[in-house]
Amino acid sequence: MPELRKDPIIGRWVIISTERGKRPTDFVPVEKKEHGGFCPFCYGNEDKTPPEIFAIRPDGSHKDTPGWTLRVVPNKYPALRIEGQLNRQGDGIYDKMNGVGAHEVIIESPDHYKDLADLEVPAISDVFRTFRERVLDLKKDIRLKYIMIFKNHGMDAGATLEHTHSQLIATPIIPKRVIEEMDGARNYYNFKERCIFCDIIRQEIKDNIRIVYKEDHFVAIVPYASRFPFETWILPKKHVSHFEFISDDLLPHLAIVMKEVMRRINVALNNPPFNFVIHTSPLQNKFLEYYHWHIELMPKLTRVAGFEWGTGFYINPTSPEDAAQYLRELNLKS
Amino acid sequence: MPELRKDPIIGRWVIISTERGKRPTDFVPVEKKEHGGFCPFCYGNEDKTPPEIFAIRPDGSHKDTPGWTLRVVPNKYPALRIEGQLNRQGDGIYDKMNGVGAHEVIIESPDHYKDLADLEVPAISDVFRTFRERVLDLKKDIRLKYIMIFKNHGMDAGATLEHTHSQLIATPIIPKRVIEEMDGARNYYNFKERCIFCDIIRQEIKDNIRIVYKEDHFVAIVPYASRFPFETWILPKKHVSHFEFISDDLLPHLAIVMKEVMRRINVALNNPPFNFVIHTSPLQNKFLEYYHWHIELMPKLTRVAGFEWGTGFYINPTSPEDAAQYLRELNLKS
Repeated sequence: MPELRKDPIIGRWVIISTERGKRPTDFVPVEKKEHGGFCPFCYGNEDKTPPEIFAIRPDGSHKDTPGWTLRVVPNKYPALRIEGQLNRQGDGIYDKMNGVGAHEVIIESPDHYKDLADLEVPAISDVFRTFRERVLDLKKDIRLKYIMIFKNHGMDAGATLEHTHSQLIATPIIPKRVIEEMDGARNYYNFKERCIFCDIIRQEIKDNIRIVYKEDHFVAIVPYASRFPFETWILPKKHVSHFEFISDDLLPHLAIVMKEVMRRINVALNNPPFNFVIHTSPLQNKFLEYYHWHIELMPKLTRVAGFEWGTGFYINPTSPEDAAQYLRELNLKS
Repeated sequence: MPELRKDPIIGRWVIISTERGKRPTDFVPVEKKEHGGFCPFCYGNEDKTPPEIFAIRPDGSHKDTPGWTLRVVPNKYPALRIEGQLNRQGDGIYDKMNGVGAHEVIIESPDHYKDLADLEVPAISDVFRTFRERVLDLKKDIRLKYIMIFKNHGMDAGATLEHTHSQLIATPIIPKRVIEEMDGARNYYNFKERCIFCDIIRQEIKDNIRIVYKEDHFVAIVPYASRFPFETWILPKKHVSHFEFISDDLLPHLAIVMKEVMRRINVALNNPPFNFVIHTSPLQNKFLEYYHWHIELMPKLTRVAGFEWGTGFYINPTSPEDAAQYLRELNLKS
């Protein structure tokens, strides 16, 4: 069972997940290899993953067989496990609890050679619809307080398998970074009686210098205080606190904007490694006036070094305005 | 002039430092190359760095010539600049100020082929003594609120030059991560009337399962809630809030412990990339009962991925107790 341990000074929780059992010799760097080896996410290898939780099967094929266009399975090496109780306890001055939660993998396509950005809009919509369905299902478990949905693309962004996939981790506590963001947004709301994200969207549309792409329902911007070069946020224009409240008719809009942003970043930066993370409200909150769900996408072009680790301060060598202009003005041949 | 911009939601400051002028094409990955090329930190190239601020010259040689054993120069591409005023201002709903501060490079040895861990104890003592002297000098400038001293070793840890060096960045604001740590330590002190770091040292010495190395004045431990495999903290046993208060007689002790820790990590993990950061109190504070300076050393063995970015939560695949035992029991041939 993984263990959750709390840093007693700043209150950060860490998952000690030794099931992956890393000894010093396991850390020798792995070279990126071309496909040719075995891939557990390809057709025909459905029995090499834990049994599927959810799938889209247009041909009505059977569970854990080929025929799917999208498949959700538990992570084979989960950071957190669904069974058991939290069992909070002390350990001298320290605090720990059992690593209860969920860790699922969303295999976005059966095609080993396609990235998320290469999929057609309906297939990308299916990915976001699946995220929503998994959250709505897991939300019934009241032990779970937060669900983080994210994608690691490329080895330097932490991906260990190249077949396109994203992940979901449901945690039994609200993560510190989320609490900070909720607190910041709540403070602003208390002061201004407006959502800070709505204010950001208004200013960005008016200034029109950090916009990457916009359409009727979503806008993509390079944030004013970007941590990373070409960092891009995708926000719904209408105020909604929880990602899982997204309606069916908005899913294709989100898919179009995500595809545009990923393609522009791929062309501009030569298919860089990237992460994206869905920032949303805690599961057990009702609709919130002060928080606004959005997606943060971060190409991994620079290394996070000692200064960043020590300060929580980032050094960004590219101006957000230059990055946005470059991405916005790219001429994509479709 | 670099610009400091504040994230309006969580209050994180970012340095937009476009003097390095990165365009998309500048981000193509650089291969690690062997020495043979030009190195601005080697003897004879003193005029290729900005003029030296401080040096140790046992032979009495002239400024900006060979003969030094350690040399401090301004960073040629500074994240922050010493000239000018902060000029805090708004930008619609956003906040910014000029990037005033200092960014210095400590060239730890003239030998291109030695790492910090390879230096003799007196030379390592000189490095820490130099850190102290630079802090005491910069502290006179009341615009500066904090000094972060750190080392990036290896490309994957953010180093751009392989010649052994560390860096110092003085900032005009106290970084968010430092405020969080100070607040956490103060809350504990208010509750217990004891320093949390002193309590950690006491429990670690008593439990004796996460100790890597100890001697009369310093102890090296793998922290209970380690973010990274083999993360190691070096703490002075006696309570002191500020690194720059270290006395001359303690410097060789710190050098011995740092050398032991770095050598053990190098042997255990095959010379991994790593960062270390000195965690200390803000410059303008007097001696604090609740904060205890220390060094955090993080080998870079795992990639920080979407989940960590989104949550501030870390997944560590190696138990701190296993890592400490492995490092502690290593048989180093000297």
